[in-house]
Amino acid sequence: MPNPTAAMLVIGDEILSGRTRDSNMYHLAGELTRHGIVLKEARVVADDQAAIIAAVNALRAAYDEVFTSGGIGPTHDDITAEAIAAAFGVPIGVRDDARAILEAHYARSGTELNAARLRMARIPDGARLIDNPISRAPGFSLGNVHVMAGVPNIFEAMLASVLPTLTGGDPLLSQSLRVMRGEGEIAKPLADLALEFADLTFGSYPFVRDGAYGTNLVVRGTDAARLDAAMIRLAAVVTPA
Amino acid sequence: MPNPTAAMLVIGDEILSGRTRDSNMYHLAGELTRHGIVLKEARVVADDQAAIIAAVNALRAAYDEVFTSGGIGPTHDDITAEAIAAAFGVPIGVRDDARAILEAHYARSGTELNAARLRMARIPDGARLIDNPISRAPGFSLGNVHVMAGVPNIFEAMLASVLPTLTGGDPLLSQSLRVMRGEGEIAKPLADLALEFADLTFGSYPFVRDGAYGTNLVVRGTDAARLDAAMIRLAAVVTPA
Repeated sequence: MPNPTAAMLVIGDEILSGRTRDSNMYHLAGELTRHGIVLKEARVVADDQAAIIAAVNALRAAYDEVFTSGGIGPTHDDITAEAIAAAFGVPIGVRDDARAILEAHYARSGTELNAARLRMARIPDGARLIDNPISRAPGFSLGNVHVMAGVPNIFEAMLASVLPTLTGGDPLLSQSLRVMRGEGEIAKPLADLALEFADLTFGSYPFVRDGAYGTNLVVRGTDAARLDAAMIRLAAVVTPA
Repeated sequence: MPNPTAAMLVIGDEILSGRTRDSNMYHLAGELTRHGIVLKEARVVADDQAAIIAAVNALRAAYDEVFTSGGIGPTHDDITAEAIAAAFGVPIGVRDDARAILEAHYARSGTELNAARLRMARIPDGARLIDNPISRAPGFSLGNVHVMAGVPNIFEAMLASVLPTLTGGDPLLSQSLRVMRGEGEIAKPLADLALEFADLTFGSYPFVRDGAYGTNLVVRGTDAARLDAAMIRLAAVVTPA
């Protein structure tokens, strides 16, 4: 059975302006690979309702799962929940279970649950809440779209709640070989091998170290025995005689 | 006059598998902001011809400039140049000026310009070369699409060649204010101010430090005097009386 596919949608002006360096994509990519879900595409869009709606509708139609990060806080630029509801064409409002979570949290810290904070209990109709063990305000899943916070430790905690609920595939395995030869030197035997092992993917990543060219070769697939076989052949063809 | 818009397209399985952490998006975002070009969207796709074609055609139609990174080396998984040619519907082949650059480079180092390396001289018809001061193999611009290497120092050097040739706008200015109050505390006055200064954008980025909630507030725009005025009002409305 082919592995399930996924896409990521990062929402936030701060990434596109260069103010903040996104780290959630890298985290998600690694976690999905371990879970046997293939991340096929990622997009970053601004805090703009039309842009979020267009991206989420394109991605949820094309892939099995969609993970979003950012835009679910209490301020005026946090418009992700509204945009997701609009993308699905469902109503959105303050939901009792989400409100109860916030009430309990703010009561413990003696902080007022004001109108701005209450916005974080706005959940599109039909969504399942995603637990936020850190700052409590929940994320949610609607259909195949999983809406999570942008703050990295909260994103990571929410993903840890969601991932076990999703059907994964065979874990995507990889093996790598580091050779001190330039890419251009080994491109031909590598291409031949990629044709021979068409069920695996072969990646080639050049580097320069102490003025000498080297290449990291990475073979990926789900069948450990095939990977082993490919690595033995790879070592033979890229090592100078 | 509104600022020109841009998109980025990152091409590479290694980013989506979590093997490599992309850094070119963050670099590009900062450089474009300084140059007065607004980065509106970024996408990451795999080394897959159909995916590259679809993304580049969507982005070049929607934005003034498109910057790509990755997939222009000598190996079988480097398919960006072919995909860009296909997206524009133009032929591609080894071009004399690109071949001359590679010939001179490999002659200096006494390395053979083999068939794999010669692939790096394949340039779509009508493209302008982008200088690569580091490893010589050029990038290219075709229409409003600027095709650059994925290796970060080469990407950065190529971008430095391209950027001065593009029409920028007024630089995008930003000022920020750090307050030790939670986002939910200041969301209302911040939203009111964003309405009052509709020509500026107001961003709000929460953090936790030593167990206390704080928020970085960022105001962006192109008019320095308006930014100054907004910052004075901002400081007044978010500071507890």
